[in-house]
Parts: sequence; structure tokens; C-alpha cells
Amino acid sequence: MASRGALVFLQPSRLPLDPYLPPASTSQQQQPPPKPHLTLTFATSLDSNLSLSPGVQTVLSGPESKAMTHYLRSKHDAILIGVGTAIADNPSLNCRIDGVGGYGGEGLEGQPRPVVLDPKGRWEFGPESKCIALAREERGKAPWLIVARECEEGKRKMLESVGGRVLQLPASEQESGRYAMDWREIMVCLAEQGVRSVMVEGGGSVINELLSPKYFDLVGSVIVTIAPTWLGKDGVQVCPDAREEGGKRIPVSRLRDVKWIPLGEDVVLCGRPNGN
Amino acid sequence: MASRGALVFLQPSRLPLDPYLPPASTSQQQQPPPKPHLTLTFATSLDSNLSLSPGVQTVLSGPESKAMTHYLRSKHDAILIGVGTAIADNPSLNCRIDGVGGYGGEGLEGQPRPVVLDPKGRWEFGPESKCIALAREERGKAPWLIVARECEEGKRKMLESVGGRVLQLPASEQESGRYAMDWREIMVCLAEQGVRSVMVEGGGSVINELLSPKYFDLVGSVIVTIAPTWLGKDGVQVCPDAREEGGKRIPVSRLRDVKWIPLGEDVVLCGRPNGN
Ligand SMILES: NC(=O)c1ccc[n+]([C@@H]2O[C@H](COP(=O)([O-])OP(=O)(O)OC[C@H]3O[C@@H](n4cnc5c(N)ncnc54)[C@H](OP(=O)(O)O)[C@@H]3O)[C@@H](O)[C@H]2O)c1
Ligand SMILES: NC(=O)c1ccc[n+]([C@@H]2O[C@H](COP(=O)([O-])OP(=O)(O)OC[C@H]3O[C@@H](n4cnc5c(N)ncnc54)[C@H](OP(=O)(O)O)[C@@H]3O)[C@@H](O)[C@H]2O)c1
Repeated sequence: MASRGALVFLQPSRLPLDPYLPPASTSQQQQPPPKPHLTLTFATSLDSNLSLSPGVQTVLSGPESKAMTHYLRSKHDAILIGVGTAIADNPSLNCRIDGVGGYGGEGLEGQPRPVVLDPKGRWEFGPESKCIALAREERGKAPWLIVARECEEGKRKMLESVGGRVLQLPASEQESGRYAMDWREIMVCLAEQGVRSVMVEGGGSVINELLSPKYFDLVGSVIVTIAPTWLGKDGVQVCPDAREEGGKRIPVSRLRDVKWIPLGEDVVLCGRPNGN
Repeated sequence: MASRGALVFLQPSRLPLDPYLPPASTSQQQQPPPKPHLTLTFATSLDSNLSLSPGVQTVLSGPESKAMTHYLRSKHDAILIGVGTAIADNPSLNCRIDGVGGYGGEGLEGQPRPVVLDPKGRWEFGPESKCIALAREERGKAPWLIVARECEEGKRKMLESVGGRVLQLPASEQESGRYAMDWREIMVCLAEQGVRSVMVEGGGSVINELLSPKYFDLVGSVIVTIAPTWLGKDGVQVCPDAREEGGKRIPVSRLRDVKWIPLGEDVVLCGRPNGN
């Protein structure tokens, strides 16, 4: 019997996904690789929306896809989200697949490290934030925060009190006031912290950046769940910036080694960046 | 052996699609039904784009999907597109599946009637337009034009000379200058002309209107092909207007009886409007 609150994702469903997961060897190597294996994963509607509007969490995919997400989490050292998602969703960011630490297993075995990309420290977490509470209950690892400038002392202390950490990275200040980090530097930073595989879960801006030609080669595999619904205009959309070559529009990116796996009412698309 | 230029779509690929096609009885009935069976079908990228930009035809799906489209056409009395597509694509709008009239078969047997929704008569077709040339060669039926105001005499004559027709329908003039027709009236008009099934193929504005709550009940089934590529911003997108209920955003539409069919590198989604 599965332990309380645990999700079950059976072997026949796991098999077709496994070729797209980080190589098993990476979790046994002595030396971490120079860059973690990056799995980009998210769920959209047919009109490529992640949610009905910014700041709103929208349940898109069915229960089978939820179990799949937690299976995928168990196969990665870390999961990363942008601060927009941290604020909108108050996410748990742990793994609840049956048998991992906190859900039938020992310690924090199989629990991924949550990483939140929050250059300006906009995420106002507290003891009641789900992923902080879960870390305290030893049902998930404490989050790491990637910031561009000094973190408020109180926040740093609270994070460190549950085993979390603040990582400061260089960023270039944009005209818009944003602090933009280079995804290559983010990946190198994670590798230096011993992270051999990272599952990037969203949201919209993070995904659109990683799909752009500038960064798509960083991605090891892509796993997208599509639900048979249209959310309509003004949602948070996966749609990268347009690409031109010789004054002509061309597709931004394409997948190879494609596999489509029906899962409940949804479909799961697995692939690798064409060119990698 | 297939006849010259003909496409082949074999029985095993046909089978899963058949439940979503117009009921066979509709083509044998004496009395046409009050409204034709409407199959909405199109191909998009993962970011729900039909093309890279308005007025540009973009090859999205693989050769298997092309054969599928022509199989679907052979199962409908008519195929309908908006004038935007007629102008952008110079489409053939015939059926090239092996065995239909002009492709191994007798006369125009199995050829659908092309219908172009062109309220203001913007489509500048001529003898060299693909679907006019094909009608002359008896490899396709001549198009019908649905207009909102009197059609230019020269155009009407050219159309009628190959067996086409102009159908005039009431339209309300919008502030934008558009002449908007009611899709229910378009469907009734087609039924009156003996059309028992129509496959609506696009483009963006036509599809987004039919996905809206106002018209989605007119749709009998939806068949969408999705290709594993992202086209990026500023394309022609399938993304209907947002929907609210009690001041809250809700999904615009959802499918039931969903089936996902991998086809080459693409996937084909079949479903029926939830609520129908
Ligand atoms: N369906 C799904 O699978 C799924 C998954 C995740 C999220 N979501 C939804 O997505 C929405 C949130 O998406 P979002 O686009 O608003 O937010 P997001 O992508 O989660 O976070 C975006 C923010 O992260 C920071 N960031 C991103 N790239 C950066 C870079 N290169 N350098 C530095 N900082 C960077 C920026 O923070 P600053 O603004 O502070 O500069 C940016 O505004 C929510 O509605 C959520 O529910 C859906
Ligand atoms: N990937 C695919 O499966 C696929 C299929 C088809 C087309 N496409 C692409 O889609 C693009 C064209 O899409 P589009 O949105 O520009 O054009 P469209 O949908 O083909 O045609 C739109 C026009 O049709 C008329 N129309 C639509 N609804 C009407 C209504 N209720 N009443 C009266 N008139 C109505 C209007 O003409 P007026 O402007 O004159 O009022 C409207 O502007 C092209 O790039 C084409 O290649 C792709």
C-alpha cells in the first residue's frame, strides 16, 4: 500500500519516459558534469497557455500527469522555477511519489532541491509557505534562492534555519529595470553546488527564454503535457520571441527523437532539441 | 498502384479517425439535415500557431498528415476556408486521395465542394488560381463564394463558367468596417444547398470564432494536428477570445471523447465539443 499522501506512477507508464531522463550514471559519478542535465517540463492547453492569467494557478492536466510530474521530480537533483511561479502558486516543490523520503522512504532520499530564480528578492515567503513548511516537516528539501543582489537578512535566516541557501549571481541590469542572468551561468552555478540534473518547471518567462536559440542547446530533453482545452487570450503563454534569418521568419525551435504518449485525457510529448 | 499525383492513406490509419467523421447515413439521406455536420480541422505548432505570419503559408505537419487531410476531405460534402487563407495560400482545395474523381475515380466522385467565406469580395482569383484551374481540369469541384454584398460581374462569370456559384448572405457591418456573418446562417445556407457535411480548415479568425462559446455547439468534431515545433510570436494563432463567468476567467472550451493518435512526428487530436 502506498504511504499517506503518496502518488503512484506505475512501471508501464514510466518506461516510455525513461530515455528522456538524466543519464543514471550522473547520479553515481564522483565528479559532477560541468553542466547539469536540464529537463524542461510543463503543461499547456491547446492554445499553449500555462495559466488563465499571470499570477493565477490553473489546473490543466489530469491526475495521471500529476503523478508523472512527481515521478520526474524523483529523477532529478533539483527543480527550478521563476519567482513569478513561486508567487502565483505557493508551490510545494517536493516529490510525493511513493517510496521517496517523507513518503515511505528514508530521510530525504529522492527529494529534489527546489531552486527559485528571484533576482530582486520579490518572493515573500514565510514559515507558512508550503515549501518552507515541508522542509521543516522533513518531507522536502529546503529551497535555494538565486538572487542578483544582497538578500534581506530576515529572509536569509529563515531560509538557512530550514536548511536552505541563498546563491548570488551576476546579472546585467536591463532598461526595463530587470536583472537578467545568463542561463549558462545559472547552470554552472548549480553544477558547482553538486547538482547533476535539474528539472525546469516554469513559468512562462523562464520557459520562453530556454526555448530561444540563445539557450535551447542547454536543454537536454523536453517533456510537455498538453490538455485538450483552450484557455483563450491573455493567459501566460509559452510562445518564444520570433526568429528571423536573412530577413525571413523561421521557426524558433524544433524537437527531434519525438515520442507522443497519451496519458488519461492528455498527451505527453517527449523530445530533444534539434541540433543537440 | 496509386494513380498519378494521388495520396494514399491506409486502412489502419483511417480506423481511429472514423468515429469523428460525419455519420455515413447523412450522405444517403433523402432530406439533408437542418445543419451540416461540421468538422473543424487544422494543424498547429506547439505554440498554437497556424503560420509564421499572416499571409504566409507554413508547412507544419509531415507527409502522413497531408494524406490524412485528403482522406478527411473525401468524407465531406464541402470544405470551407476564410478569405485570408484563400489569399495567403492559393489553395487547391480538392481531394487527392487515391480513388476519388480525377485521381483514379469517376467524374468528381468523392470531391468536396470548396467554399470561401469572402464577405467583401477581397479574393482576386483568376484562371490561374489553383482551385479554378483544377475545376477546369475536372480534378476538383468549382468553388462557391459566400459574400455579403454584390459580387463583381467579371468574377461571378468566371466562377460560373467553371461550375462555381456566388451565395449572398446577410451580414452586420461592424465598427471596424467588417461585415460579420452569423455562423448559424452560414450553416443553414450550406444545408439549403444540399451540403450535409462541411470540413472547416481555417484560418485563424475562422477557427477562433468557431471555438468561442457562441458557436462551439455548431461543431460536430475537432481534428487537430500538432507538430513538435515552436514558431514564436507574431504568427497566426489559434487562441480564442478570453471567457469570463462571474468576473472570473474560465477556460474557453474543452473537448470530450478525446483520442490522441501519433502520426509520423506529429500527433492528431480528435474530440468533440464538451457540451454537445
Ligand atoms: N502549467 C504549468 O506547467 C506551469 C508551470 C509553472 C508556472 N505556471 C504558471 O506560470 C505563471 C508564472 O509565469 P511567469 O512568466 O509570470 O513567471 P516565471 O517564469 O515563473 O518567473 C519569471 C521571473 O523569473 C525571473 N527570471 C526569469 N528569467 C530570468 C533570468 N534569465 N534572469 C533573472 N531573472 C529571471 C524574473 O524575475 P523578476 O521579474 O523579479 O526580474 C522573471 O520575471 C503562473 O500563472 C503559474 O501558475 C504554469
Ligand atoms: N495550419 C493550418 O492548418 C492552416 C489552415 C488554414 C490557414 N492557415 C493560415 O492561416 C492564415 C490565414 O488566417 P487568417 O486568420 O488571416 O484568415 P482566415 O481565417 O482564413 O480568413 C479570415 C477572413 O474571413 C472572413 N470571415 C471570417 N469569419 C467571418 C464571419 N463570421 N463573417 C464574415 N466574414 C468572416 C473575414 O474576411 P474580411 O477580412 O474580408 O472581413 C476574415 O478576415 C494564413 O497564413 C494561412 O496560411 C493555416
